[in-house]
Amino acid sequence: MSISSRKKWTAAVAGVLVLATAGMASAQGSKEAEAAIKYRQAVYTVIFNNFGPMGAMASDKMPFDAARFRRHAGRVASVAAIAPDTFPEISKDGNTRAKPEIWTNKAEFDQMMADFLNKAAALATVSRTAASVDDVKAAFGAAAGTCKTCHDKFRVD
Amino acid sequence: MSISSRKKWTAAVAGVLVLATAGMASAQGSKEAEAAIKYRQAVYTVIFNNFGPMGAMASDKMPFDAARFRRHAGRVASVAAIAPDTFPEISKDGNTRAKPEIWTNKAEFDQMMADFLNKAAALATVSRTAASVDDVKAAFGAAAGTCKTCHDKFRVD
Repeated sequence: MSISSRKKWTAAVAGVLVLATAGMASAQGSKEAEAAIKYRQAVYTVIFNNFGPMGAMASDKMPFDAARFRRHAGRVASVAAIAPDTFPEISKDGNTRAKPEIWTNKAEFDQMMADFLNKAAALATVSRTAASVDDVKAAFGAAAGTCKTCHDKFRVD
Repeated sequence: MSISSRKKWTAAVAGVLVLATAGMASAQGSKEAEAAIKYRQAVYTVIFNNFGPMGAMASDKMPFDAARFRRHAGRVASVAAIAPDTFPEISKDGNTRAKPEIWTNKAEFDQMMADFLNKAAALATVSRTAASVDDVKAAFGAAAGTCKTCHDKFRVD
């Protein structure tokens, strides 16, 4: 790679090396924790924003648009797959609604997370061939149900 | 769908209907704008966090891990595909570093955005068969370069 192109992106990524080396450092605990929490919240914000229009369609508050529904379902499925990586131990302390039980009761949390991913993937699959809102309601309800189940147990209200 | 399962997810999505109907409402401009900006920032936070470890590997600050690199590259590509949808007109006003030129100079912005998506997709493709860091450096540099080019032009420093 040329020096000039190297310079270009070295500047772009310099700020994230703290993140990249998270786990190696110990002195900057709270900064790492903040960054990890921010990342987690961003992942869930993206998921939430894509659930919104699907929820409006599934509850007949917005006309069903098959292409749009499919797009949102695909996005939820792919971003949901990132979610399990956003709960490093360090991120349990800080400005977060994540309950400590996520880390002390990890097996149950992991099970609920797996259920979310499975139902999100199933929703994406169903939405690929859905012709009407009735074709997606059950799969949408199942996916949205996994959000609520996990939030009720592992998130501060 | 049963009433009980309907109830379950109706509660989960109720809060997002404001977002889902954005564009129909006019009285709550700033709330819509805030939500749209928050969504955009979340999308870019997810992208940023996945660029980080790739940048560390590409600049030899972290050992190359092909599976991890591939995972991050795939995530950047899929979340980058959401980015074009996060610049609705309403989101130009508010707590954002997005410059007004994004909306007044839309053709150029769209071109840069398309370039980002193309380079991110190319990086994901290359990373699927990469055996060493040398196999990804050029594609990574090209993708990271599109971030910088667009930020220099369309983002407040």
